[in-house]
Amino acid sequence: MKTRFLLFVFLMLSASLYAQDQSRPNIIVFMVDDLGWQDLSEPFYKEKTAINERFHTPTIEKLARESTKFTNAYSTSVCTPTRISLLTGMNAAHHKVTNWTHPTANKPTDAADEMLTPPDWNINGLSPVPNISHTVYATPLPQVLKENGYYTIHVGKAHWGAAGTPGANPTNLGFIVNIAGHAAGHPQSYYGTENYGNIPNKASYQAVPDLSEFHGTDTFLTEALTLKAIQSIKEPIRRKEPFFLNLSHYAVHVPIQPDDRFVQKYLDQGLDSTEAAYSSLVEGFDKSLGDVVAFLKKEGIYDNTVIIFMSDNGGLSLAPPRSGEEHTQNRPLKAGKGSLYEGGIRIPLLIKKTDGKPAQSEQPVIVEDLFPTILDFAQVKESNLVQEIDGMSLKPVLEGRENNSWKERALIWNYPHKWVPTDGHGINYFSAIRLGDYKLIYDIKHGKLELYNLKKDIGEQHNLASTMNAKTKKLSKMLADQLRKWDALLPVYTSSGESIPYPDRL
Amino acid sequence: MKTRFLLFVFLMLSASLYAQDQSRPNIIVFMVDDLGWQDLSEPFYKEKTAINERFHTPTIEKLARESTKFTNAYSTSVCTPTRISLLTGMNAAHHKVTNWTHPTANKPTDAADEMLTPPDWNINGLSPVPNISHTVYATPLPQVLKENGYYTIHVGKAHWGAAGTPGANPTNLGFIVNIAGHAAGHPQSYYGTENYGNIPNKASYQAVPDLSEFHGTDTFLTEALTLKAIQSIKEPIRRKEPFFLNLSHYAVHVPIQPDDRFVQKYLDQGLDSTEAAYSSLVEGFDKSLGDVVAFLKKEGIYDNTVIIFMSDNGGLSLAPPRSGEEHTQNRPLKAGKGSLYEGGIRIPLLIKKTDGKPAQSEQPVIVEDLFPTILDFAQVKESNLVQEIDGMSLKPVLEGRENNSWKERALIWNYPHKWVPTDGHGINYFSAIRLGDYKLIYDIKHGKLELYNLKKDIGEQHNLASTMNAKTKKLSKMLADQLRKWDALLPVYTSSGESIPYPDRL
Repeated sequence: MKTRFLLFVFLMLSASLYAQDQSRPNIIVFMVDDLGWQDLSEPFYKEKTAINERFHTPTIEKLARESTKFTNAYSTSVCTPTRISLLTGMNAAHHKVTNWTHPTANKPTDAADEMLTPPDWNINGLSPVPNISHTVYATPLPQVLKENGYYTIHVGKAHWGAAGTPGANPTNLGFIVNIAGHAAGHPQSYYGTENYGNIPNKASYQAVPDLSEFHGTDTFLTEALTLKAIQSIKEPIRRKEPFFLNLSHYAVHVPIQPDDRFVQKYLDQGLDSTEAAYSSLVEGFDKSLGDVVAFLKKEGIYDNTVIIFMSDNGGLSLAPPRSGEEHTQNRPLKAGKGSLYEGGIRIPLLIKKTDGKPAQSEQPVIVEDLFPTILDFAQVKESNLVQEIDGMSLKPVLEGRENNSWKERALIWNYPHKWVPTDGHGINYFSAIRLGDYKLIYDIKHGKLELYNLKKDIGEQHNLASTMNAKTKKLSKMLADQLRKWDALLPVYTSSGESIPYPDRL
Repeated sequence: MKTRFLLFVFLMLSASLYAQDQSRPNIIVFMVDDLGWQDLSEPFYKEKTAINERFHTPTIEKLARESTKFTNAYSTSVCTPTRISLLTGMNAAHHKVTNWTHPTANKPTDAADEMLTPPDWNINGLSPVPNISHTVYATPLPQVLKENGYYTIHVGKAHWGAAGTPGANPTNLGFIVNIAGHAAGHPQSYYGTENYGNIPNKASYQAVPDLSEFHGTDTFLTEALTLKAIQSIKEPIRRKEPFFLNLSHYAVHVPIQPDDRFVQKYLDQGLDSTEAAYSSLVEGFDKSLGDVVAFLKKEGIYDNTVIIFMSDNGGLSLAPPRSGEEHTQNRPLKAGKGSLYEGGIRIPLLIKKTDGKPAQSEQPVIVEDLFPTILDFAQVKESNLVQEIDGMSLKPVLEGRENNSWKERALIWNYPHKWVPTDGHGINYFSAIRLGDYKLIYDIKHGKLELYNLKKDIGEQHNLASTMNAKTKKLSKMLADQLRKWDALLPVYTSSGESIPYPDRL
């Protein structure tokens, strides 16, 4: 009897100790800011494109050989909504942080429009506590992971909430460690020699915090963040605790500043200084991922680490700051960041599981799916979330056993905002839905619908709305029903104060 | 046999689990910046002084009833040397960060002198890695504690190393969490409404990082740091790990800005706006400590928490920024911050042990003693330090069983620098030694010695150097021998390039 009791205690204790060991995988989200779908030497299309040919990302190429490659992965069209979908599992139309948030509180970022007034959206971003004005109150992913035994680390761009609200600081969102994340959405400078912006009387809201040991040195921001990320994961490794690392590079967001370690190669390729700089930012994050991978291998924990590589929206196609003709930078995709055309929302996504088996999936997936997926990897069965999540775990997709519900699964976008002064290119005031191969786009301001068959027409050149009436009607109803269910926001006619109708009421 | 084996395993596992439990105390160093020895309503002198009467620090009064009060405790005369002595266990003459460090690398902070050139001191502060120019390479206290199972948190002013060197960032010194610590030695602003300085085009090196959630709010810096400290210790409490919290307030350093929660009381007392503001900064940190204590009690861990309350140097006696006649602010002590007279180096020190027994000790002690004391509290028996420590554990003093070695114990100061443009008041270029009741002061620039009996003459008004030749000679030899042993730095005659002699070679 005594033996049995002791055995029981022993097993209980073992279980408790084991839970702190590496029986659960480490999880890294490696997010790049504003990276276009093709801005890698690894293609996510059926073939390598001219754009792919420009870039050198050997680490991503290697990682793709050990990952599931998602060739129809999506984010939202601008940064903050994507980042909040990742941390909440909610669709942007649902969490209502539908636009990028200002570094300071209570400041809408909508451009002025002669006809429409923006809706009353959650301009202050995500909040982990209730009753903060203009925020979505939700249980953040790192909070859940931390409470379930993960050591949680954020390094890089945060941009989850406005200064003056709790969401501004990643330490309020469940991250044990925060390096360089705050309320701003881009770096003032990538250069250590410029203190990443922290120069007396010159610093802006975008001066990058927490990297004082690199000030005055020639450490490029991407490298500094990499060094801090590697340093930070040493602690959970020492503790034998699984970790969640959100390594969220400021690259390749503007300012497009050359990374001197890599830029000459691209100038030699014949690129102009802007595009060579952009390509050097790309190679810089590829080197960062390579360094992290090398460290994980040295520590013997690479296999037991899930790596999710992604961008937060499509590549920037405004020129300037990019070079060349505007909105050609993502061809064959139409437009770029800010747009609900494919150029603005289609992202590269790799998920390396612990088995390292390569696979490819054409399943359309979206950023909020990563929330339940990551909880699945972390073996978190139950968690008390205050929000209802919209994402679906990619586990069955990753295991090649997705059922029919995935075929009927619709993806939704809602961007009831004006981002740039001139309308067009799918950027200002659009909603959209993708179901199977078809995508319906609702031009909110002009009350028009467009329908595309993405399988045949990834460039969205052939609007089928007038020829495929039934499909158009079905998708507009599905989109409207879902928006209605979420009480999704649409702009208001300034003159009459009336709301614009959902797309099935056109 | 099976039973025995299981019992053995069970005991081993229990021990391992127990080690993570609260069998070892939590340790809080609550450091106030530039707080004078009497700037509290709790006296550290034989009687309550006129200065004590000005202040309202009810939390400190309560804490003193549960602590050992050290009535002869010392720091160095300026901030960085004290902070580095705390983290290294080394005397400042030994670690050679003898002056405050500039926020940026490779910049001496010595004022210009017509006669003397400052020595080649460690202007870049502390480094946890070797071969960093002009730093003292040492194993920092939080590193040792972390490696021995403590969850280590820094909140507030750091000022251990210059930007551009590893010591600038507390996360390189063994702190798991760093909130608001960087290379600067004071806050640009105490006001949340001023973003603690982080205002575009106005931020200085002193803009306080990491508190973006309070920007634009009326959260005073002292309060913001308190909230973050309490939030930070929730994690080790949840984990049932002992923690080390270095809560190092920016208060009461300049800028002397009123804390609106408390200032009216002091204006009503008849103080001018500057001194009322100063007193409000004092009451602000008292409230901070009170809030931390209340939280510890609520969590049921107050008893198991060691609290060390201290200042980093004497009270500022320059006017302005203080009001009144210069160098009267610490009377009966002579001079203030920067000086090797008692006003510059004598600090309040309370150590609350887990038994909460009140006691008082007249034993002269100095900041580097806290390093081995804290390791004793943490039950760290051995640690691989790269430095040789100078401090002595206060454990025997705290237990009322100090042996004779304590009576023979000499305290040493060395400040081979010019802090203010005008010499005098024990500030520019001084070394000193205290043995028992006697203190010898070496005026380096003018080659003079002063001797005081502090027991009879705490105000250092009666120089005994000429009347007590033997004592003067003995102490000058002891001081010189120790400085020589450490190869301590002295300034150089600019004209001849010759070093100034140690005090026994006058």
